[in-house]
Amino acid sequence: MAQLNKPTKQQDEHFMQQAIELAARGAFGTTPNPQVGCVIVAASGEIVGQGWHERPGEPHAEVYALREAGAAAAGATAYVTLEPCSHHGRTPPCADALVKAKVARVVVAMQDPNPLVAGEGIARLREAGMQVDVGVMEIQARALNRGFISRMERQRPWLRLKMAMTLDGRTALANGQSQWITGSEARQDVHRYRAQSGAILTSARTVIMDQAQMTARHPNTEKQPLRVVLDRNAQLQPSANFFALESPVLRVIDAAYQVPDEAQQWPAHVTTLALPVSNERLPLRSLFDKLGELEINEVWTECGAELAGALVAADLVDEYVIYMAPKLFGASGRGLLQLPIFERIAQAPELVFESVTMLDTDLRIIARPQHSGGASRGELTS
Amino acid sequence: MAQLNKPTKQQDEHFMQQAIELAARGAFGTTPNPQVGCVIVAASGEIVGQGWHERPGEPHAEVYALREAGAAAAGATAYVTLEPCSHHGRTPPCADALVKAKVARVVVAMQDPNPLVAGEGIARLREAGMQVDVGVMEIQARALNRGFISRMERQRPWLRLKMAMTLDGRTALANGQSQWITGSEARQDVHRYRAQSGAILTSARTVIMDQAQMTARHPNTEKQPLRVVLDRNAQLQPSANFFALESPVLRVIDAAYQVPDEAQQWPAHVTTLALPVSNERLPLRSLFDKLGELEINEVWTECGAELAGALVAADLVDEYVIYMAPKLFGASGRGLLQLPIFERIAQAPELVFESVTMLDTDLRIIARPQHSGGASRGELTS
Repeated sequence: MAQLNKPTKQQDEHFMQQAIELAARGAFGTTPNPQVGCVIVAASGEIVGQGWHERPGEPHAEVYALREAGAAAAGATAYVTLEPCSHHGRTPPCADALVKAKVARVVVAMQDPNPLVAGEGIARLREAGMQVDVGVMEIQARALNRGFISRMERQRPWLRLKMAMTLDGRTALANGQSQWITGSEARQDVHRYRAQSGAILTSARTVIMDQAQMTARHPNTEKQPLRVVLDRNAQLQPSANFFALESPVLRVIDAAYQVPDEAQQWPAHVTTLALPVSNERLPLRSLFDKLGELEINEVWTECGAELAGALVAADLVDEYVIYMAPKLFGASGRGLLQLPIFERIAQAPELVFESVTMLDTDLRIIARPQHSGGASRGELTS
Repeated sequence: MAQLNKPTKQQDEHFMQQAIELAARGAFGTTPNPQVGCVIVAASGEIVGQGWHERPGEPHAEVYALREAGAAAAGATAYVTLEPCSHHGRTPPCADALVKAKVARVVVAMQDPNPLVAGEGIARLREAGMQVDVGVMEIQARALNRGFISRMERQRPWLRLKMAMTLDGRTALANGQSQWITGSEARQDVHRYRAQSGAILTSARTVIMDQAQMTARHPNTEKQPLRVVLDRNAQLQPSANFFALESPVLRVIDAAYQVPDEAQQWPAHVTTLALPVSNERLPLRSLFDKLGELEINEVWTECGAELAGALVAADLVDEYVIYMAPKLFGASGRGLLQLPIFERIAQAPELVFESVTMLDTDLRIIARPQHSGGASRGELTS
């Protein structure tokens, strides 16, 4: 095999950045699969093939890129945002396809956390005599697939908690009025997050109070996420407007209500999960393990201060997405989170600001738990 | 007079930017005067003189710049951030000095709002045959001297309300613990603001609860600001630690306490202002008019939710400076502002985000009342 002029780190990052941008095109469609992008670059530096994974059951990124490259793939470098697969899933192994196309070098942003791959794809490429470099723009590549990585590594989804508040930290007036705190750009951003999530989590109380449907209404929506509603006391009736849309719903109720509940006539798109309640609280950790089993990568949560506080206290929140409106409601307004009463500041949860973005006249502040690691120092984006 | 090659708008802005940066060097010293900078540029494009106003009683920016330029000022262009003065104050008129030095063109960022000048300086330059252009980088120049402009135009100071809170809008735990919410970089920023302000406003309650001295402890501090403490019920005794530092204090008490109060022995640096109380509230507007009379340009406020809310409700706050720590205290924590209870969202004060800056792990969010005008759409700075 001909010796390659080794591209510089800068060139590698340039092409990997392109692969990451391609991968992100799958944001609305790949779940429960990861988003993956691939760029094939000839020795001349010319891009000869590009591809990204669009949705489950359809070809992987590498396959599209190799198809476009054709014979030009021989001797080229492939940039892939995730380790090429080594197993027969719904499609044949991409590692084999790269070998067959006589690609000379493969640059991989990150190893696949899927235990079915987990380094085997890389090993197979190396066995075939290819040069394989791993870890180029790994942080950015991991950010693409936080949910998939969470499910593979922790067997539960990545949880984003959305809250909308005023500058003085209030979600509603004292009388409960809250529509609309934020502007239309922030609301559109919420629908984008909803449409990119595997599931939306809410409470029966929020559904009732806000007449909420919790559907994704974004132009790029490919499929409605699973709507998960915590309805401990089985308050929502089958006739509720929330169930009118025939997209999958998971009702979570207290196991004590299971028998009377079975007498109800539920439509086919509604599944009921009965879990044992203790201390008047559904077991949130068990629920998240269950959502992992259901192949949910990312959960988007919109709820009131009680459930939000319970998720924080259970240490289940991976990312806080706060929409802050430039308004002041005053201390009589409703608070964000019901947390245990702390006696010392050291007991309060500590976060790290990850980004601040202006959405029309509102701010979107993204923060993560301090202990989550991996997050570099917060940065501001505009 | 020789015809000048007229510089481009870009060149004018370039030199005015330098004049603004020079002006800002006076931030810790010029009050009650405005910050002013001056750059003198020869026809060749070379800077031949620079100056800025340092402190009251010392020469104006133009004088320093003309001194440096010497004979090179003849035929040159002077960039000044504020209209040159036309009146004999503590120093002779700068307009006359520019004429005498035979400067050919004067570029002025903004007209002086001081009624003693108010266009007369510009008129005098034009009468002398100079070309005068007004309004180059006016927005940036106005931002330098918000306090001075406020006092000239509204006869009261510019009020900044500082608040430190958690991401969920809490200033303290339920038990009152609040030290320290934010990190050292945010606290240093507070001391910079204090040192640049003409006065610091607080309440007796905050002084007592936080053992606060409200002094400026920043390395560039030139003089301690006037400390204004609202002590309606004359709770603070002369022996209080707050009065230990011999820098000027203005105590504001209920006029009803004036007679008994006069029996107290107050140190010379403490002045008492007795104002008529109605509805258990000191007349804040009258206080601010008084501070205007005292030549205070900028007031920096650190206080609790009650006074902060009263200032907001009285529509006296010109700028909100919010330090947000990446912590969560929960809804049992203390709120930011005691405001009237609103029945409709439209009644709540509306603001405009002006900037967001990361200070170590905290955010500093600056906002202004929506009705204040002049503020362009918020921008993010890092």
